[in-house]
Amino acid sequence: MRDMLGREDAISVEEAQKRIAEHLIAKEPFLTALPIEESYKRVLAEDISSPEDLPSFSRSTVDGFAVLSSDTFGATEGLPAYLNVTNEISMGEEPQFTLKKGEAAKIPTGGMLPQGSDAVVMLEHAQCADDGLMEVFKPVAPGENVISAGEDVRKGERILTRGHMLRPQDVAALAGIGITEVRVYEKPRVSIISTGDEIVPAKSGLRPGQVRDVNSYNLAGLITEHGGLPVKKGILKDVFDGIQDAVKESLDTCQMVIITGGSSVGILDMTSKVIDSLGSPGVIFHGVTLKPGKPTIGGVVNGVPVFGLPGHPAAVTVCFDLFIKPLLRMLTGVKEKEHLKKKRAMTARIAKNVSSSPGREEHVRVVLESRGDEVWAVPVLGKSGLIRTLVMADGTVVIPAQVRGLQEGDTVEVLLF
Amino acid sequence: MRDMLGREDAISVEEAQKRIAEHLIAKEPFLTALPIEESYKRVLAEDISSPEDLPSFSRSTVDGFAVLSSDTFGATEGLPAYLNVTNEISMGEEPQFTLKKGEAAKIPTGGMLPQGSDAVVMLEHAQCADDGLMEVFKPVAPGENVISAGEDVRKGERILTRGHMLRPQDVAALAGIGITEVRVYEKPRVSIISTGDEIVPAKSGLRPGQVRDVNSYNLAGLITEHGGLPVKKGILKDVFDGIQDAVKESLDTCQMVIITGGSSVGILDMTSKVIDSLGSPGVIFHGVTLKPGKPTIGGVVNGVPVFGLPGHPAAVTVCFDLFIKPLLRMLTGVKEKEHLKKKRAMTARIAKNVSSSPGREEHVRVVLESRGDEVWAVPVLGKSGLIRTLVMADGTVVIPAQVRGLQEGDTVEVLLF
Repeated sequence: MRDMLGREDAISVEEAQKRIAEHLIAKEPFLTALPIEESYKRVLAEDISSPEDLPSFSRSTVDGFAVLSSDTFGATEGLPAYLNVTNEISMGEEPQFTLKKGEAAKIPTGGMLPQGSDAVVMLEHAQCADDGLMEVFKPVAPGENVISAGEDVRKGERILTRGHMLRPQDVAALAGIGITEVRVYEKPRVSIISTGDEIVPAKSGLRPGQVRDVNSYNLAGLITEHGGLPVKKGILKDVFDGIQDAVKESLDTCQMVIITGGSSVGILDMTSKVIDSLGSPGVIFHGVTLKPGKPTIGGVVNGVPVFGLPGHPAAVTVCFDLFIKPLLRMLTGVKEKEHLKKKRAMTARIAKNVSSSPGREEHVRVVLESRGDEVWAVPVLGKSGLIRTLVMADGTVVIPAQVRGLQEGDTVEVLLF
Repeated sequence: MRDMLGREDAISVEEAQKRIAEHLIAKEPFLTALPIEESYKRVLAEDISSPEDLPSFSRSTVDGFAVLSSDTFGATEGLPAYLNVTNEISMGEEPQFTLKKGEAAKIPTGGMLPQGSDAVVMLEHAQCADDGLMEVFKPVAPGENVISAGEDVRKGERILTRGHMLRPQDVAALAGIGITEVRVYEKPRVSIISTGDEIVPAKSGLRPGQVRDVNSYNLAGLITEHGGLPVKKGILKDVFDGIQDAVKESLDTCQMVIITGGSSVGILDMTSKVIDSLGSPGVIFHGVTLKPGKPTIGGVVNGVPVFGLPGHPAAVTVCFDLFIKPLLRMLTGVKEKEHLKKKRAMTARIAKNVSSSPGREEHVRVVLESRGDEVWAVPVLGKSGLIRTLVMADGTVVIPAQVRGLQEGDTVEVLLF
């Protein structure tokens, strides 16, 4: 269906997301090798199996005495086991003796167990006499207070898998097994093309009628935060050929293209035509039942997603969250558990009635406020063209399309920025 | 009170946190100036007031016709208002005319309102005839479909405050008001000193009895994630003078010092003595009723926090979360709302009984699993000396000191890594 201006009716957020997913051609991201020091938050491009046992030897987990566990069986406070302390083990060194029945060797936490021993008696459960004789008050089981060779990671065992985003402890594990370089996926490059005859760079003074480019800064931050590499293509005049050239060049070098510009019909039509001119299927939706963000254009050109975002800052943020972020995460190559994908959110009570048109998903910016023990979400009023509403807000509350609005005091989930 | 080995009894996590807070001397972090492109996630060291009105002129928020609102009062579909379309406004340009009563000018979204006009009629609510005459079917109020000059940000208005961590939209706002460089706080430098006669660098081969340094990699990642700058001081032998020198040097150049090492009594005593030797008050606790992490040492030397962490990887992560992270956030200069400080967490049901000694706070590593509509948290078994338990886990469940344990099926909060 088309409206009185000849435009297709806006489609739902879900339908828009579905269409993008259908037309995308998932490509394997590029690889690069990095020293592990630089691999934090990067996505592994290979499975990692351990080249060796970790630890490579049996270690004590306590301060105490390496023993043969069978020597301590049945020991009690009243009837201790007696052992000869024949040696002391130093950290980082291999004991140059074999422990025999009836013997014990002093060992520090982390020390290597001598041949013959299979457990460690804690310092607190033993008492030394003068003549090298020791009383043990508590039996130990085989392996007690010991991490045995390969107990942490076995040689050949797969410890990390392709698609995993490396956390601090994962990098630590790589260091532990002696892997100091890993292959990771390159960050997906996302082209940001700012358009508009009225837009000037942030450093420019303004003539009447001009405004500075804000959206490329918002987008660059959001893209970086979610694992992408923003590629700013500068500010272009609203001229078909210039925009077409910039998108064409971006399609060759980037994995996603975002055109931000005005929301005027003329500009939107030009953006649509540029997308359609460059490959198939071109524009796949133009207009979403969403506020803010209605005039969003979604397209795919030969498998690469291309978006035309309305110029309103709040709309840019909402569209990023709904359409761009999920694609960007996918392009990073990361494989996440469903429940770990969730955005940081908190429950609050809405502090004002908020009306919402049915059939349109509304994203309301809110400020969090403590009131007694409760957290309240105060809607930030103001047009979506204002950057200030985004700066004031701590997060957003989503009113689904089928809901008419919110009543003061309703419990809501706030998605935090 | 002291135990049989002459050590002070372990204190509670809360008491340990309280003692650190009491002895810290909060210093103003250092400042540095950065281009806004590099200021994402950095903490503002100055209040930002706008040097000008944003926008600097009244802009249309829709495609339509700039009018005098009074010319449209009372207009309906049946009885439209008639206006002469005398001009068309171009994006980015100042209209060179004044709109008079009875006149209208075509204006795109984002266009500058001409002198004399105070509202914009949407394209959809008007119809043009051939002769430049236009019918308006719906009245507009003064200011309707317009963002007036200074409506977003007024000249002189404070838009961001010292201590705010810059988000993408904040950087966008800075660009919008023409501020391209900001003063931010330097990241707090955190010294990481790895100690242990058995510890060798990640790139080394291993002789029997040796293990590779993993904790400095875990800590470097955690410090970076929370806004600090890790400064690795290398791996030191367990020799008093060497460790003392490294800590002394760190105290001169860093805002926090972390010594990681073994958990043997000898090493812990040496770490304590080093901390005590360098200034007042020195060690403020030695041992916490916490698992893993009991042998943690906390100290403050002339206002700078110095920690001695046990060598077990899981203990390092827990101690970072409880003791180091809150201090590090404070040292960054960030001022956060209480409810935004919360870690990313989710509710789940615990999949196994977990026993816990009363009087000791336990941090249990868990893997998340979907079972039907529910998320279950499966405890990862294994000694805290294993790095693998941390790699397998998605987060931790905290069992408070006064709780005896968890029953299978209990609802728990999982703090996500």
